[in-house]
This record gives sequence, structure tokens and C-alpha cells, in this order.
Amino acid sequence: MDNSMKDQIRQKADRIESILSSFLPEETGYQKPVISAMNYTMNAGGKRLRPMLMEETYLMFGGTDRDMIEPFMAAIEMIHTYSLIHDDLPALDNDDYRRGRKTAHIVYGEAMAILAGDGLLNYAFETASKAFRGDSRDSVIGRAFQVLAAKPGIYGMIGGQTADVADEDKDITLDELMFIHKNKTSALIECSMMIGAILAGADQESIRTMEEIAEKIGLAFQIRDDILDITGSQEELGKPVGSDEKNNKNTYVSIKGLDRATEDVLRYTREAIDLFDTLPCKNAYLRRLLLYLSGRDN
Amino acid sequence: MDNSMKDQIRQKADRIESILSSFLPEETGYQKPVISAMNYTMNAGGKRLRPMLMEETYLMFGGTDRDMIEPFMAAIEMIHTYSLIHDDLPALDNDDYRRGRKTAHIVYGEAMAILAGDGLLNYAFETASKAFRGDSRDSVIGRAFQVLAAKPGIYGMIGGQTADVADEDKDITLDELMFIHKNKTSALIECSMMIGAILAGADQESIRTMEEIAEKIGLAFQIRDDILDITGSQEELGKPVGSDEKNNKNTYVSIKGLDRATEDVLRYTREAIDLFDTLPCKNAYLRRLLLYLSGRDN
Repeated sequence: MDNSMKDQIRQKADRIESILSSFLPEETGYQKPVISAMNYTMNAGGKRLRPMLMEETYLMFGGTDRDMIEPFMAAIEMIHTYSLIHDDLPALDNDDYRRGRKTAHIVYGEAMAILAGDGLLNYAFETASKAFRGDSRDSVIGRAFQVLAAKPGIYGMIGGQTADVADEDKDITLDELMFIHKNKTSALIECSMMIGAILAGADQESIRTMEEIAEKIGLAFQIRDDILDITGSQEELGKPVGSDEKNNKNTYVSIKGLDRATEDVLRYTREAIDLFDTLPCKNAYLRRLLLYLSGRDN
Repeated sequence: MDNSMKDQIRQKADRIESILSSFLPEETGYQKPVISAMNYTMNAGGKRLRPMLMEETYLMFGGTDRDMIEPFMAAIEMIHTYSLIHDDLPALDNDDYRRGRKTAHIVYGEAMAILAGDGLLNYAFETASKAFRGDSRDSVIGRAFQVLAAKPGIYGMIGGQTADVADEDKDITLDELMFIHKNKTSALIECSMMIGAILAGADQESIRTMEEIAEKIGLAFQIRDDILDITGSQEELGKPVGSDEKNNKNTYVSIKGLDRATEDVLRYTREAIDLFDTLPCKNAYLRRLLLYLSGRDN
């Protein structure tokens, strides 16, 4: 892997870290237990890719208003984090550790982990709603809100998670697997890049192009994840390899084979970058970040 | 109890029922399991008091735009319903039945009940966001959104629920009990009445007055609930009596005594109605509904 790209991502993530911190609720009052569990998981690290994609898209389309973009950057990371807390619960994936750190329900108990997930999902909307300010920009913020509410929901992330949970241990079709990958993985990436474009005032066509780019990058990222689960090292994958096979999970590789899966990662990535290059504006870092996410910048 | 008031509420609730139905997602696609669990609980009955309070407040302040108020009416009921699904989970109250019907996790399993709660909370915001339409009214809708996100959250309903869960089986002070009652019960009533006023274009002072009225009615309602748990019948209370004592729960009655609790219900109700009567507009049904909620219209 190219160290300078890794370093660049780390630097950007550090800056985003301090933005996120400024939006976290104070651990005080009778509701302190739930806030502690929320902040514990928000502070558990991560590459902050979703707020990063949002911010870079916003900058690319000429956005300059920090008070507008930052609440949405915090909101998308809160939504991502709530989904991790609930996914890790005993009734779902039953994971005691994530990135080497105990999960929320292990530290705070199951009841508080459920409430912390609810708290983060709700606080995401509360945080983003702070961008409204009673002037003509509220229509653009309202449009961003529609995307912030739609992509993580039942026709997006939760929909993908539902299919994944409902059909565990079943043989699923490629059609259903694509549904799961698109919704579990691509939806929040689409959400991030669309909101960056919307808030910067991009035209409808550019917003739609960002959605397509994000969908393809999400698929490339997820198929690559399925490949690394077989061929990669724990370090590359960021979690133990072989877990899909252990869990009897149909993956892109088990359905289409390794060669075809590898080709498709390349194809989705190339299609995404070709679309990116048709945009009326440029952001070299974002372009490289998209390549990095699909494993092409290494 | 005055039958005509009960009948009137039932008639209004039936109308609201058909509005809510029109906002429920179709049970189709790979996400069908989560949508079924969401709709099962949304269709489990209930008096639909929160959307009713919202609509009556909207009408009182002269609101006429159905496309504006109805998505928010559906949203507040979705938020109330998600909170019931998650409250009933084994890790929280562990209730198998609610209003004589099996709870979501009994019918659909715990994983799907967690996702259905998440789905409803998220879909509430997705539904309300449909009210935005890219014109000058978006600022008022943005203001309503801020309240829709704040009152159910960690500084509202989830905050109250957290204190209730965290201090179960502990002796709590009157201060903490008031915090729990205000946030678990009053917060969504405040949310409903404030949004009705905001969307109808009420002035700041009237919105603030509605918040105060709602807080007091919520407290009167909840203290009355604590009283009925000791003195009432299962029919009056709508759930088995004596459950607070069984659960070693400090209640308003165990802290302040039955006489003082009864006085305080009267006092909060009178204060709420006195405030209501200072408003620049009238709604006789809403006034009577507020009295009914605190047990004074019987």
C-alpha cells in the first residue's frame, strides 16, 4: 500500500475527528449512561470515510459554509456508528469486540447499547437539524435532509441489513446478494456524496452522477471485501479472514467465482472513475480516495 | 367516564388511523420482514393521542395544509411506536404482550424487532422530510423538524428512558422521578403540540405556551397513572395494576403520598387549562381532550 495515501487519509481523518468531537453531547445529567455509551463508540476510531467523502464532495462543488456541512458530517458518522452498535448486539451478530475494543453492550450492558443506538440515530437528525436557520438556504438543507433520512432507512441500509439477517444460513441468489451489498454498503456512501453535492448547490445531474459513482464504489469495496475474506490477510481485511465461509455465507466469490469477482471489482471501479471524470469540477484527492476504497490505489 | 367524549375520541382516532395507513410502507421486496414487523406494531391500535394533539393544535392556530401536517402526524406516531417496540425487548422491559397482543419480538424475533424499531425511528424522519418542497415554507418545516428531532432524543424521551432503565431497583429522588416523567411522558406530547403550532405559523410565545401546557398535561397524566396503579382497576389503567410496587419502583405516590399526588394532578391540570385559556385562539375539543388526559373530564 502507498504510504503517502494512507498518511493523507490519516491527516484528513484527524481533522474530521476534531469536527466530530465538537458535535458529541456532554456526558452529564440523568441521561449520562446513554451518552457515555454513544460517545464510547463514536470515539472508537475508524477511518471517518463517510464524513470525508461528504466533505470532499462539498469542497469539489465549491461549498464554503462550514456551519452547513459540518452538522451533516457529524450526522452521517453517528448513523454509521449506531448501525455498528445495533449490529453487534447478541440478537444480531453477537460480537464482543470491534477493532480490538469491547463493543458497547459488553461495556454498558445490552439495554444501554440498544438505547445508545437509538440515541445516536435520533441525535444524527437532531445534529443535522441545527443547520436550519430560517432563511432561503433552508430548502437546500431540506433536500439534504430527505437524503439523510432515506439512504440509511428501510429502502437503504436497514433494508440491506434486514435481508442479510433474514436470510442468514440460506442460499441466496446473486440478485439478493447485490441488494444486500448495495443497501448495506453503498447506501451510506451514496448518502455522503449526494449530501456533499446538494449542500454545495450542485445541479440535479451532478447529484445523480455522484449517487451512481458512490453505488459503484460501494460495490467494488464490498466485493473486494468478499475476495479478501478468502485471499487476504487479517491486516488487509481489518478483521479475521474466512468468517464468511465459517458463517456459511454466500458471497460474491462463492456465487461468481474468484476470477469473475476480481474482474467485477475492476469494472465497477473503472465505471465509477469514468463517471467521476465527466464531472464539471475536479478533486484529485477525492478521485484517489475512491480508487483507494476499491483497492486500486495500492 | 363520559361516553360521548370516549366516542368523540374514537371517531377522531378512526380518521387519524386512515391517515397513518396512507404513510405506512408496502410489505414488499427483500426488506419485507422488517416492514411487516413495523406495520404489525403500527396497526396494534392505540388512541393515536399524539397525532390527534398535533392536528387539533394545528387546526386551532388556523392551519389548513394537509400535505404539511399529515407527514408529521404519521412521524410522531412512528416515533411513539418504535419506542414501544424497543421498550418491550427482553433486555429492557421484557414484555411478551401489549394491549393483549403479542409484542414484535415475540412474533418476529428479537433481531427483527430491533431493526423494526430502528426502521420506524428512521422512517419517521423520512416521512416528515416529504413535507419539504423547495419553497419558502421550508423554513417553517425546518423549525418543526428541529422539534421532531429534539424532543424524542437524549434530551427528551430517550433521556427519560435511560434514567428509568439505569436506576431500576434503586431509590430515586423526586427530582429524578420528575426528570423521568417529564422526558418519558411529556416530551412527545410537547413535541406534538409544538409542531402543530409551528406548522400553523403560530408566534414564538404561543409555541412556548403550548410547550408548557403539554409538559403540565404530561405530568398530570403520568402522576394519575402512578395513582391508578394503586387505586384503580385494570380497565381504568389499561394494564395490570400494582406493577410499580411489584417492580420496586419509586413512584410519585410512594414519594409524596396519595393525597399530595392527587392534589398535584389537579394543580398541573388547572395550570395547563389556565394557560390554554390565555391563547389567542380556541379549540373546545382540544381543551376537553386535555382535561380527559388528566382524568378531569369524567
